[in-house]
Amino acid sequence: MLPREVVEATASAVLDYQGMGLSLMELSHRSAEFKPILEEARSLLRELLDVPQGYEVLFLGGGASMHFCMVPFNFLKSKAAYLNTGTWASKAMKEAKLFGEVVEVASSADKNFNYIPKGFEIPADADYLHVTSNNTIYGTQLHSDLDSPVPLIADMSSDILSRRVDVSKYNCIYGGAQKNLAQSGLSFVIVKESALGRVERTIPSILDYSVHIANGSMFNTPPTLPIYTALCNLRWVKEQGGVAEMERRALQRAETLYGEIDANKMFCATVDGEDRSYMNIDFVMAPGYEELEQSFVEYCASRGVVAITGHRSVGGFRASCYNAMPLEGVEALVDCMRSFAKR
Amino acid sequence: MLPREVVEATASAVLDYQGMGLSLMELSHRSAEFKPILEEARSLLRELLDVPQGYEVLFLGGGASMHFCMVPFNFLKSKAAYLNTGTWASKAMKEAKLFGEVVEVASSADKNFNYIPKGFEIPADADYLHVTSNNTIYGTQLHSDLDSPVPLIADMSSDILSRRVDVSKYNCIYGGAQKNLAQSGLSFVIVKESALGRVERTIPSILDYSVHIANGSMFNTPPTLPIYTALCNLRWVKEQGGVAEMERRALQRAETLYGEIDANKMFCATVDGEDRSYMNIDFVMAPGYEELEQSFVEYCASRGVVAITGHRSVGGFRASCYNAMPLEGVEALVDCMRSFAKR
Repeated sequence: MLPREVVEATASAVLDYQGMGLSLMELSHRSAEFKPILEEARSLLRELLDVPQGYEVLFLGGGASMHFCMVPFNFLKSKAAYLNTGTWASKAMKEAKLFGEVVEVASSADKNFNYIPKGFEIPADADYLHVTSNNTIYGTQLHSDLDSPVPLIADMSSDILSRRVDVSKYNCIYGGAQKNLAQSGLSFVIVKESALGRVERTIPSILDYSVHIANGSMFNTPPTLPIYTALCNLRWVKEQGGVAEMERRALQRAETLYGEIDANKMFCATVDGEDRSYMNIDFVMAPGYEELEQSFVEYCASRGVVAITGHRSVGGFRASCYNAMPLEGVEALVDCMRSFAKR
Repeated sequence: MLPREVVEATASAVLDYQGMGLSLMELSHRSAEFKPILEEARSLLRELLDVPQGYEVLFLGGGASMHFCMVPFNFLKSKAAYLNTGTWASKAMKEAKLFGEVVEVASSADKNFNYIPKGFEIPADADYLHVTSNNTIYGTQLHSDLDSPVPLIADMSSDILSRRVDVSKYNCIYGGAQKNLAQSGLSFVIVKESALGRVERTIPSILDYSVHIANGSMFNTPPTLPIYTALCNLRWVKEQGGVAEMERRALQRAETLYGEIDANKMFCATVDGEDRSYMNIDFVMAPGYEELEQSFVEYCASRGVVAITGHRSVGGFRASCYNAMPLEGVEALVDCMRSFAKR
């Protein structure tokens, strides 16, 4: 979900960019029109996330899966630590194994990833600790930046801009843009420059963060329209009050929905307490009510509440509450839950 | 440049896809709505280019530069041959050198790449011969598929769908979508399945063509909106009469413009004869008229003919005549050349 203003601004730029009689899709990435789009997007992401000096912001093609490979290519000298909190973390770890030793510091696979492991040991000689800050499938989230003896690297695809982040704890923050930032086909990277150039392997140019930094995200043609969508969304976030306001709204949506899940005897959450994601809220029918799952989906659909089916590996329901989701969207689902239980 | 119908269809899908009240940007790549878009785009590209059995068509994130790295990763066992026809060919060759021995079979660097080398020897033990079918900067083009003792691999970023191609001569045809197919952030690949899986190195998943084939271009989230733009454009090409008709129009545009360049004593082409590109027509002021270059650009602009400045490494003028360029666009430039010379 994207704010309607962002959708409309993108549509308008596709049709006729600023009255030029040309689509933004037809404008060169080297044109006088595109350069300020990229510049402003970069500077707004930097401002909104309070990115310190010494870090660069990149907008590149591809998504998070590309960075599952680029991260170890650029940062793994001999050993990397990975926290396994689900499907995406596992995929990232699988790619890292091609580049060196990978230590799985902890895993929540024993309980179908319904919690974030704690109290694990982080090898002090690891090049980095990789975490997936929000797990879309299992509905768990790291709500704060871990303390770690080695620099963090995080896939923040699905919760970027939804909470304040202490960027200085990370060597790299990356993600696909299609959840909380823009549309598919674009990825964002926040990378600490001094952490680059320390591996001995030769890196293909397109996979080398230093090359992209040296070329200001224009080593190759970047995804111009998705970057424009990102810019419009970043402007929207700023107008709404910035990341602090996104964080307040996320908490409010989460409290509203988890509150009902916990109070309504017909439903129960799959994740407990502090590990609950504010972005992807997973719940199932409570024991004894399982056979009503499909009727509830249909009941919601009849009231205009759709796309709540859970991922097949968890089942039940999943309410995705990205930045653009208004509280009313969550309240509509809560109303469905109440009236369904009553009925 | 894209056909106006394609621009309008994309804008409409951004605003509200098929009356769903949702932007196509907001629809999951796993949704019932997106799957047929990808399927139809794939099947139309296959149909329009007469892709034989045993080849797969992929739509992936990133552009041609990604494939400069993926091609040797997937196909270079020990030795690869590259034809050096300019900037893009050189960049592709540079990346290949990270993976094995690279033989430059010929280069036109001696004359600032203003011709396509001929009569060169192709090592029979090379894994493939890589060519850049059209050179946007230097205005040269391979108008036919080379005869080669080893399979061809081609970057067709800038002339895909503008001429019929004998796909069976290639192990792989790839390119960025932003010239003749769709918008930036998307690449297309036509790959011979039996040519894959022959290298011994381990390939990161995202760079492995076999992984993308096994997952039907959905190993990771593909660039959904650019794929929709590609679909709309492929439909347009088919409605117009297919690739044969695109080829006829390209030839007609080229004959019209090169005809005037050759006839008008004030201008001359930078490329001769059969190597002249039909996509990017480069020309300069004739000897003695060099100082009029800037006035000509201004004269054209005053008559609504813009974006004709040549690349800095060639100078002069470049008329890019991709598929969507109507003959009238070229005729308007020809009119400018005639009236400017007369004046």
